[in-house]
Amino acid sequence: MYRTHNCGELRIADVNKEVTLCGWVQRVRNLGGMTFTDLRDRYGITQLVFNIDTNKELCEQARKLGREFVIQAKGVVTERSSKNKDLATGEIEIIVKELNILNKSEIPPFTIEDNTDGGEDLLLKYRYLDIRRRPILKGLQLRNKMSFEVRRYLDGHSFMEVETPMLIKSTPEGARDYVVPSRIHHGEFYALPQSPQQYKQLLMVAGIDRYYQIVKCFRDEDLRADRQPEFTQIDCEMSFVEQEDVLQIFEGLAKHLFKTIRNIDMDFQFPRMVWKEAMEKYGSDKPDIRFGMTIHNITDVAKGHNFKVFDDTEYICSIAVEGAAGYTRKQIDELTEFVKRPQVGAKGLVYIKYNEDGTFKSSVDKFFNADDLKAIADKAEAKAGDLIFILCGKKLQVLNQMGVLRIEMGNRLNLRDKNKFAPLWVVDFPLFEWDDATQRFYAMHHPFTSPKKEDYDILETNPGEARANAYDLVINGIEIGGGSIRIHDSALQVRMFKLLGFTEEKAKAQFECLINAFKFGAPPHGGLAFGLDRWAALMNGSDSIKDVIAFPKNNAARDVMIDAPSAISPEQLDELSLTITPLKSNE
Amino acid sequence: MYRTHNCGELRIADVNKEVTLCGWVQRVRNLGGMTFTDLRDRYGITQLVFNIDTNKELCEQARKLGREFVIQAKGVVTERSSKNKDLATGEIEIIVKELNILNKSEIPPFTIEDNTDGGEDLLLKYRYLDIRRRPILKGLQLRNKMSFEVRRYLDGHSFMEVETPMLIKSTPEGARDYVVPSRIHHGEFYALPQSPQQYKQLLMVAGIDRYYQIVKCFRDEDLRADRQPEFTQIDCEMSFVEQEDVLQIFEGLAKHLFKTIRNIDMDFQFPRMVWKEAMEKYGSDKPDIRFGMTIHNITDVAKGHNFKVFDDTEYICSIAVEGAAGYTRKQIDELTEFVKRPQVGAKGLVYIKYNEDGTFKSSVDKFFNADDLKAIADKAEAKAGDLIFILCGKKLQVLNQMGVLRIEMGNRLNLRDKNKFAPLWVVDFPLFEWDDATQRFYAMHHPFTSPKKEDYDILETNPGEARANAYDLVINGIEIGGGSIRIHDSALQVRMFKLLGFTEEKAKAQFECLINAFKFGAPPHGGLAFGLDRWAALMNGSDSIKDVIAFPKNNAARDVMIDAPSAISPEQLDELSLTITPLKSNE
Repeated sequence: MYRTHNCGELRIADVNKEVTLCGWVQRVRNLGGMTFTDLRDRYGITQLVFNIDTNKELCEQARKLGREFVIQAKGVVTERSSKNKDLATGEIEIIVKELNILNKSEIPPFTIEDNTDGGEDLLLKYRYLDIRRRPILKGLQLRNKMSFEVRRYLDGHSFMEVETPMLIKSTPEGARDYVVPSRIHHGEFYALPQSPQQYKQLLMVAGIDRYYQIVKCFRDEDLRADRQPEFTQIDCEMSFVEQEDVLQIFEGLAKHLFKTIRNIDMDFQFPRMVWKEAMEKYGSDKPDIRFGMTIHNITDVAKGHNFKVFDDTEYICSIAVEGAAGYTRKQIDELTEFVKRPQVGAKGLVYIKYNEDGTFKSSVDKFFNADDLKAIADKAEAKAGDLIFILCGKKLQVLNQMGVLRIEMGNRLNLRDKNKFAPLWVVDFPLFEWDDATQRFYAMHHPFTSPKKEDYDILETNPGEARANAYDLVINGIEIGGGSIRIHDSALQVRMFKLLGFTEEKAKAQFECLINAFKFGAPPHGGLAFGLDRWAALMNGSDSIKDVIAFPKNNAARDVMIDAPSAISPEQLDELSLTITPLKSNE
Repeated sequence: MYRTHNCGELRIADVNKEVTLCGWVQRVRNLGGMTFTDLRDRYGITQLVFNIDTNKELCEQARKLGREFVIQAKGVVTERSSKNKDLATGEIEIIVKELNILNKSEIPPFTIEDNTDGGEDLLLKYRYLDIRRRPILKGLQLRNKMSFEVRRYLDGHSFMEVETPMLIKSTPEGARDYVVPSRIHHGEFYALPQSPQQYKQLLMVAGIDRYYQIVKCFRDEDLRADRQPEFTQIDCEMSFVEQEDVLQIFEGLAKHLFKTIRNIDMDFQFPRMVWKEAMEKYGSDKPDIRFGMTIHNITDVAKGHNFKVFDDTEYICSIAVEGAAGYTRKQIDELTEFVKRPQVGAKGLVYIKYNEDGTFKSSVDKFFNADDLKAIADKAEAKAGDLIFILCGKKLQVLNQMGVLRIEMGNRLNLRDKNKFAPLWVVDFPLFEWDDATQRFYAMHHPFTSPKKEDYDILETNPGEARANAYDLVINGIEIGGGSIRIHDSALQVRMFKLLGFTEEKAKAQFECLINAFKFGAPPHGGLAFGLDRWAALMNGSDSIKDVIAFPKNNAARDVMIDAPSAISPEQLDELSLTITPLKSNE
């Protein structure tokens, strides 16, 4: 046995105990004849004390300890004269009698402190040292606890964890599949799952009734910040349920997690918002409702004033930024540039300052008099002291742009408190999404998503208005998870495939197994999936999911620590019957 | 809400309740004016009753229900006149008032009964129907419970679950790696992990202290019965531990699982056996100690009787099969053929019948008189009525052969009761394994396995005798898991690499990240990994791991349900810069 206690558990009640601790040397301080060493492990930090007068040899040994040396120390727990309130073990220290160096350490490439001097690349390369830092360790601990509590809650609600395969079938639409060549079956490939969607529906056909899995999924996406090629889902499905049943169970899960992970009581029903309202009021299907600043449709009062930009447009909307009437020209210019960036895509930004004294100053004074501006301000629900921003364009587009500006203003005005959590169910998503490029409708979620019963009649006549039994859980403007009730009726499914332009052949190529399975008694079912990485990051107050992933890849999908991906040997390629095509010169 | 109760929960106390149930039609029986329907879901079976006299229309509807139709039934819980003791719900039935067909079913390709008429191929193709059968459902339920209890136990012992990456680096030795081509990084590949070995050791360097993970691993092996290309490990690692600490913790886990899963109290210390004894007494590094029939070395008494086969050999050993002296010539011939199969590889089988009357009859009577045979029988610890089998050859080889014969005899004599569990720690494995083909030693486990301190001195001089701090948990002759204490001292590691013929370059190519990490303060650490599939199968009394895997692949590593692996599109290959090489004609 190497140790009797860990470095985080000794308290004043343990005084006079003989103990043995192990850990890493955080720092060594010499104060006159005394040497103090902070010994660190996962559980905490305990102070070791060496006295040059009582044990010269030992003290000199301690003075030679380097940062991150691994040591074993035996000694007696003693009450500290100057206590450290910031440390759980801060009331005691160990008078060391025996010291063993278990392993030395080279000087780490960055300091193992909460605020380190390492840059992201260096931290990722030496991730095993980065994890020694409290902020990263804390993120991993939170994630571990969260996974465990997810399981505890779902197990308590009769959900069975079932492992679905990782080596599955690549489908024609699976352009973003990672594939795995088979050595045994020449020229054939497995695919890694983007989600276990088909399998979880098969499990409902199989009668599993309530399924869950915390499972790795894979997507070979073009790279975006804070995306990982492999990510973890809390994947769930239930039989004999309607949307309300699903929302109830998973609202319960969310409350359980907030209580157990953050000690937050959410003793209220989560608000629900239909997708249309979310878009119109927040310019987003994932509204951050921690703050107001809602969007208003001012089309009717803004049109008809000979301002061609407004008069020729489809939709004009506004937000009122509280108390921002005093913004400078420079600040407003900056925001104009912000909305004109290609990522946002607005053509320009109109503003109206509603001054404290009730007067107005706007970028469209040429076209609007004070009464006109007052009418807009009223419609925008602005009050004296506010700054009104106006965007115009095609409805959904301009709402999205305004949604981005709203979030930006929320950030600038510190309205997005990380320790405040505002959950929201967004419901009644559209069933279809129109694609301008191909001039047709696509399933917004997937072709098994069930339409709302009330909208069965308009599926063919007015598909754009048809709503789905689909829902997202949004917290603080982040989509934490989402799902839907699935179609279990084969006649309706056939109708849906037809609407989506799936030939029988195409449907079969993509979903043959599921379509066959549905012939043998599929129960009504539905479910959802949560992004564990994102949810854990939110719970942890992290801006990046990398903070809650032990060994993340960098933004180029590369593991810089272990150096993957990498070349493989010609023998391996040969066994797989593969040849690498040279890169085309125009690439 | 589709239902008020599930099909497994109604009891006599619920009589007179109005309930709504959902499920699958197991069967419909007409008895005179009454129609009985067994309604099945994951939780159980409840009997529905329809009376032609009281509700003709409804009863006729019920009579038309097909097998596996999905229905919803509303009615009143009533006490049964003839109770069914085999069913948890057998004291009640539902007098149905309303019946809704939620989905029809085609006739399934096999009967959904405990003993089905489907063959393995058909069952795998329609696995989603196979899972509806109790024996398969039960296996998945057991596995789910086991995973949950593993987590509960380990969490209670301060183990943190940490997810390690699935897209890792292929190593030069990773010939059995599944690889994943990168689209973004031309010509480069990830590998799927055969185990998270390096990552868990990195986590110890990172100070995680106690790690576990229930994790998918992958091995592109040549196919053997009951192997899966993807399998699940309970992977664990601990810091600041010696072998004894590891054994204690995981013996505790095993006891916890036997108690919670099978309600078996294992209130004894698991026996331990050194590898050498396991080989000499049981002819196996995974002895089934549910029965005796141990192997004895009879070399000294068997040699020197002018029987050339014995006189020219290295090692002669025996088992005594209790009460089998009466075996017929045919039975013995059959067993001779058994040991001569290439999978066992013996040249022949010598027998001695120790008859009830104290006389002997053997296949070597020409060379051995009664006294000689008695001497062998004594050495073999045989008694009158036993049948002695003798094999000879090179020591390890012949012990392995005898081990296989011993298990076969155990099976034939019904000495291997599935409901009896005999755990055993096998310890003190050899550090090295000699390979005749390449005439050198290899690491028996992996090159980070620590030698026993007592054997440090003989590492170079007598490597074949050096023992490792390595251990396996064996239950009923099945290796459930194994692991080792790792080397954390870099000088010892260098010595080990040298012994194994690793050049610095080769060690770097395979373990660069870990070797670097060890420079920054690696704690003493060790761990082990359990095969969840195998352990769950054992707990479930299953002969095949397929019984506890939701969607297993067949013995050709093919998923016949979803049809994977399969060809991918030319566009996909193009994006990955890959070309498939035609099969060589001689293949």
